[in-house]
Amino acid sequence: MGTFAGRTEQLQHSHTTQLRVRYGETDAMGYVYYGTYPLYFEVGRNELMRHLGFPYASLEASGIMMPVVDMQLHYGSPAHYDNLLSVTTGIVSLGGASIEFGYRIADEANTLVVWGTTTLAFVNRNTRKPVRVPQAVRDRLTL
Amino acid sequence: MGTFAGRTEQLQHSHTTQLRVRYGETDAMGYVYYGTYPLYFEVGRNELMRHLGFPYASLEASGIMMPVVDMQLHYGSPAHYDNLLSVTTGIVSLGGASIEFGYRIADEANTLVVWGTTTLAFVNRNTRKPVRVPQAVRDRLTL
Amino acid sequence: MGTFAGRTEQLQHSHTTQLRVRYGETDAMGYVYYGTYPLYFEVGRNELMRHLGFPYASLEASGIMMPVVDMQLHYGSPAHYDNLLSVTTGIVSLGGASIEFGYRIADEANTLVVWGTTTLAFVNRNTRKPVRVPQAVRDRLTL
Amino acid sequence: MGTFAGRTEQLQHSHTTQLRVRYGETDAMGYVYYGTYPLYFEVGRNELMRHLGFPYASLEASGIMMPVVDMQLHYGSPAHYDNLLSVTTGIVSLGGASIEFGYRIADEANTLVVWGTTTLAFVNRNTRKPVRVPQAVRDRLTL
Repeated sequence: MGTFAGRTEQLQHSHTTQLRVRYGETDAMGYVYYGTYPLYFEVGRNELMRHLGFPYASLEASGIMMPVVDMQLHYGSPAHYDNLLSVTTGIVSLGGASIEFGYRIADEANTLVVWGTTTLAFVNRNTRKPVRVPQAVRDRLTL
Repeated sequence: MGTFAGRTEQLQHSHTTQLRVRYGETDAMGYVYYGTYPLYFEVGRNELMRHLGFPYASLEASGIMMPVVDMQLHYGSPAHYDNLLSVTTGIVSLGGASIEFGYRIADEANTLVVWGTTTLAFVNRNTRKPVRVPQAVRDRLTL
Repeated sequence: MGTFAGRTEQLQHSHTTQLRVRYGETDAMGYVYYGTYPLYFEVGRNELMRHLGFPYASLEASGIMMPVVDMQLHYGSPAHYDNLLSVTTGIVSLGGASIEFGYRIADEANTLVVWGTTTLAFVNRNTRKPVRVPQAVRDRLTL
Repeated sequence: MGTFAGRTEQLQHSHTTQLRVRYGETDAMGYVYYGTYPLYFEVGRNELMRHLGFPYASLEASGIMMPVVDMQLHYGSPAHYDNLLSVTTGIVSLGGASIEFGYRIADEANTLVVWGTTTLAFVNRNTRKPVRVPQAVRDRLTL
């Protein structure tokens, strides 16, 4: 695993997307529920992959799935209903058959809300066995 | 559609299961989020089908899927975190290629929290086309 | 209740917003889970209220909550991961202490995915008792 | 932070509870969505705290909230719809104003599905400032 410590500069190929907190994503504390952030990470990862030219939907269509095998989240300032959050996502490291994404979520005042990482495996959709990172992905990320 | 008005006596083959409200299912009002109840309906429906001898997992394994095509929910008294809810589920009506379930959710004091119905179609899992209600299901429900 | 039958022309003050289906919002059928749509209705309602000049967050800040008291959903064509959905939301009817919203969700090909209604009550946030529709809301909706 | 490596023996005061996977908790891969597990951790934590004599609902009623400040998850074998999962939860370490829980989730065949940790802070519900671990909690955990 990489050594992402929540600073955007540590992310390669980073991309930022925005999302608005839904009421159903908050909890009785009045905060965004801690279990909502993996969904926000997914949004950031999805938009980064689209931005890089290999949308996840296309990878699945080509027979590759990417299950998450590891996740770390660090919670900073709480987010609230209707906040417009910025999710910055980038690459932390690329393995032989896996990839590690790093995330930094900030609110309108650029206060750090959450940061973390996920490691995803590349898997054959039919056999569900690990496969190597597709060459097109590797080429794109090492440009 | 049937005419379920939230009274348990109107349900045929009814079965009650319990579930405990999770913190992540509440929202910033301090109530269970209105969009959580379809999940609770699913739990009730799932346990009723298991109880009746045709668990949904077995139906899917046999090549039949049951997507929801219609849902009605009526909200009564709010539920809160850690409430132990009773979900009573039964059959409202059986069509040629569909089934209507009715639900009544009550809290520990037997206060009515939510009631409603869902209509589900029977669909071939491969073709995704409608199929008739399996004879085994029909036989079981008309005993 | 009103008589919304899923046609956009029946909605007053209608407004359309877009959202992209998240992987976590799908289920093992490969479709958007039926219980995800109340969240999409919330997104549509939230953006309509912002568009009309009375964002829900402001109403809550002013001491008014709007719990959902009734919901109806009709499911058409299934939606899938990464679909870009259009949520058209409008007003179906305005009561003394409640409001009924209508929704129409369509995919990129303008195929109807879901339509439905929700009725929301106006409630004092402290007492949790019903209150009349604020005059500013009533004025805006009857222009 | 502690050094929980997913082995039940490393957990103090451990307690096991069971839950059944809901259809809405799966995704288009046919697996439980990776973002569902924080909810399962919450269930395990909630039942452990009740078992230890200080249910979370009581702590909140007494004016203390416990937001999650750190989470780590490691994903093993995938879980599926209708699986009956065992969530074993225990204490990894106790700080001055925080507590670290460890979790091990296994399926019916006792295959390891997920393991991980969460660190929660103790916070005054009104001021939202950190407070020390209540003495009753400390006494119970060091018996």
